[in-house]
This record gives sequence, C-alpha cells and structure tokens, in this order.
Amino acid sequence: METVAHPAAFSPAQARELFRGGTSRPTTGWCGGFTQANLITVPADWAYDVLLFCQRNPKPCPVLDVTDPGSWSTALAPGADLRTDVPRYRVWEHGRLIDEPTDVVGHWREDLVTFLIGCSFTFETALAEAGVPLRHVDQGHNVAMYRSSRACRPAGRLHGPMVVTMRPIPADLVDTATRVSERMPAVHGGPVHTGDPAALGIEDLARPDFGDPVEAEAGDVPVFWACGVTPQAALMASRPPFAITHAPGYMLITDARDSDYRVGWRAE
Amino acid sequence: METVAHPAAFSPAQARELFRGGTSRPTTGWCGGFTQANLITVPADWAYDVLLFCQRNPKPCPVLDVTDPGSWSTALAPGADLRTDVPRYRVWEHGRLIDEPTDVVGHWREDLVTFLIGCSFTFETALAEAGVPLRHVDQGHNVAMYRSSRACRPAGRLHGPMVVTMRPIPADLVDTATRVSERMPAVHGGPVHTGDPAALGIEDLARPDFGDPVEAEAGDVPVFWACGVTPQAALMASRPPFAITHAPGYMLITDARDSDYRVGWRAE
Repeated sequence: METVAHPAAFSPAQARELFRGGTSRPTTGWCGGFTQANLITVPADWAYDVLLFCQRNPKPCPVLDVTDPGSWSTALAPGADLRTDVPRYRVWEHGRLIDEPTDVVGHWREDLVTFLIGCSFTFETALAEAGVPLRHVDQGHNVAMYRSSRACRPAGRLHGPMVVTMRPIPADLVDTATRVSERMPAVHGGPVHTGDPAALGIEDLARPDFGDPVEAEAGDVPVFWACGVTPQAALMASRPPFAITHAPGYMLITDARDSDYRVGWRAE
Repeated sequence: METVAHPAAFSPAQARELFRGGTSRPTTGWCGGFTQANLITVPADWAYDVLLFCQRNPKPCPVLDVTDPGSWSTALAPGADLRTDVPRYRVWEHGRLIDEPTDVVGHWREDLVTFLIGCSFTFETALAEAGVPLRHVDQGHNVAMYRSSRACRPAGRLHGPMVVTMRPIPADLVDTATRVSERMPAVHGGPVHTGDPAALGIEDLARPDFGDPVEAEAGDVPVFWACGVTPQAALMASRPPFAITHAPGYMLITDARDSDYRVGWRAE
C-alpha cells in the first residue's frame, strides 16, 4: 500500500477501492465506526436454506442484507461491487475449496444470491470507545475463531456448530464488554460464554480453527461471542455444488455506521 | 367463557386451550407478559419470498419462528397446535378471503410453511409497566391498524405498504413510550412516527383499515408503530394460490416472555 493513512482512518469507499485493486488484508481495525460484513454467495436454490438457517440462529447469523439473484450491489454500500470489493474470497465446489482469489468476477453467475451477515468487528469500535482493549488489533492479528460444541438449530440442508470469536478481556472490564455488546443484537449481541474454553468444547485457545491465535495479558479472561463464520461453516459442511464466501477475517466494509446497530444507546 | 379469571391472568396454555375449543376473541390484553405472534402460512414455494420480505422489512416483520413444511408445532409454544390455537383464522385463495374459521384443520396441507411474526402487543406489557395507559385495552377494543403511505422494500413477488398500529399516548408520556419500545427491536421497536397521521398518508384515524377505532383522551398524541399485519397485507396483494393467516388482532399467544425480547434492560 502506498497510502500513509492508518487503515482505521480510511473511509469504507477508500478501503473498498484498495481491495478492488488487489490489496488483501484482514479488515479488523479498519474504517473505525463502519460496519463490516461476512459474505455468503449461493445459487438461488440454496438461498432459502441459508436464510432460514440465519433466521433460526440469529445470534451467530444476523442477516444485514440479501441481494436479488445475479446482483452484485448492496444497499449497505452504494457503489460497491460485491465481486471485487472483499479483500479475499473463497470459492467452493461441493464443499471443497477450489480458489482463494481477490475477486470473483470470473466465477460470477446469474443465479447467485449474496447474503451479508453481521460481524463482531462491528462492536469492536463500541468496545474500544468504552475503554476495552482489543488484544488482536494491538498485536496486528486477525481475530481468533473456534468451532464450538454448541449445535445450531438446523434448517433444510444446513446444520453445524456455532463458530465463536474469542477476545481476551481484562477481568475488571468483562462486565463493560458484555453490557456494550448486548446493546448490539444485530451484530451478535452479548457474549455466549465467558471464562472457560472447555465449556464450549474448545481444547486449545492457541490453535484457533480460523484466524490467528491471540496473546492474552496477565489478568485477562477469555470472552466468547457468536461469529458470522457460523453459516459459512454450516454451508460448507452441506456441500452445495457451488458457493463463494469471504475469507475469514477479510470482510466487506460497508457504509453503514456501527452506531446504526446500537439499541437504546441514547438512554445511557 | 365459564372462567372467572381476567384474560390478562390466563397462562398461554389456558388461553390456547380456550381458543382450541372455539372461543374467538381479539387477544390484546391477554396473558400479560407473554409474547403474541402474527401467523402467516403459505405453500413452500412461497416461503422464500415471505422470509426475504421479512428480512428486508424487519421493523414491521420481525420473524420469531418458521416451521418446517407441514409442521403445525413451534418452539415458541411447546404443545400448541398452529391449526387450532389461534382464536380466528383467515383462509385465502388467490388473494380472496374464502373462510374465517376458528380452526384450519380441514384446510391443512403437507407443503405449508408457517411464519410467526412479532406483534406490538408484546411491548404493551412494558408500556403498561412504565405507566403508559393503553386506551384500546381500557376501552375493550382491538388495536387500530392503518395502511400507511410508506412502501416496504419489495422481495420477489411481495410488495406493499407498511401497516401501522396507532395508540393515543398522553403527550408527557410519549418519550417514555418511545424509549421503552425502542428497547424491543424484535417486536417492532420504537415508533415509526409520532403526531401527524397525514405524514403517514392516514386520512381519518376514526376509520382504521383493520381492528377497531380507539378514542383518544384530552392531551393524547397519536403514536404509530410498525405492525405485523404488514407481511399479510403484502402477501394478499400478490395473490398466492393459497394462504392462511390469523385474523388481525386475533393472535397466537406463545410461551415466550415479552422480556425475552428486551435488549439491555438490566442497564436501567
């Protein structure tokens, strides 16, 4: 990147332009205050199963937008091209990863429906504003994600475990982090668990299933939130003939403000 | 009804048993603290359009549950029978009302998918607890509902205006009513408009499109909320070959607690 600005200060349009040009970075910490989204693109005959899976599992799968078949635009980011503006994609055939390109123009089809799903990066701005440190951002890492032992409610051909993100939080700030994120139900809401990885069937925090491991500091407690990679994991397990997703941590940055997804904020 | 208890004190199971037996009343004010739901039942090949319409219009159409095809049970009310436990149904063919029975056992089909959609009655308990009077309940009426001039975002074959409920609220309690309902985004959230019916294209408050007119008291201001009848109105306008809905105001009473749909309540 030739730019001198810190990614947190980029506008979403600037970030998307960089990604459209081929830049490929995890987007945690980018474009402070703007909503990031998970992307899932499936043939139209799989769209009902995906939408129903999300409806039945709203905590990990909050749907922010759904396109009409073949469309690559979204109301959440006017001018964006969903085929090029995510920093890294994954292309799947029958559940097998066949490509990890920085655009999917060559893979596009007329029958594709795209789901944009809320991301816990959205509440990170609110956490930071409340004085909660974000260890993975400070360490320059992607967030750590794990398949948990909690089963999602199945829908049609889709079933699978809840995927969670983990953030080490200083013990005296866990309540603040909980309260702040609870106010954002459209982007995963409050933690699903605090404290014991084994309670979620996670054996080793140092070996996440997606993203990077994160180093805790003394006095930190692991706090787990539902993760928007959940529907992607369920979809892949059911092996649709074709699908496109973002690469975990490489999100679509929208023009929606994180604050749009806060509930009852003015009462504080 | 032989019972002596006030309907507000009934348990949801007691109310459903009455309705299963043929009792047919609007459910406003019934089973205080329990969530009521709008019902829409369509053939499976219409289910995606309904679900997508709801996703794109979450304020009037918050989806609380979706059944599998042919099923008449819901996780929100174990033991309930969706074919009998609503106090009055409407049966539609090609957008035309053909029957208003108290059960739909004879109309049931294996390919039917049922949507349960949030209802503003759910936040009425919270309003009452906050000291906001509910004029229609005091007057023994169904709530007043109007087709507004605000268009919903279309989805597939479904399009139509937002339907709204109106409650006359004492001017000095409008802020309280707004704050309380904003905290319940899963059941319509805060008002869509306060004050001027004409701003929503409503010409005469005394002539609602659904439900009963309600008498305002001196100093009351009309406050409008998005209404769960919205997807029903859109569906009927698109004339599916077959559909079942509840009759407006005659809701399914679930075992879910209204408080389950409150966000960030503990911070008060």
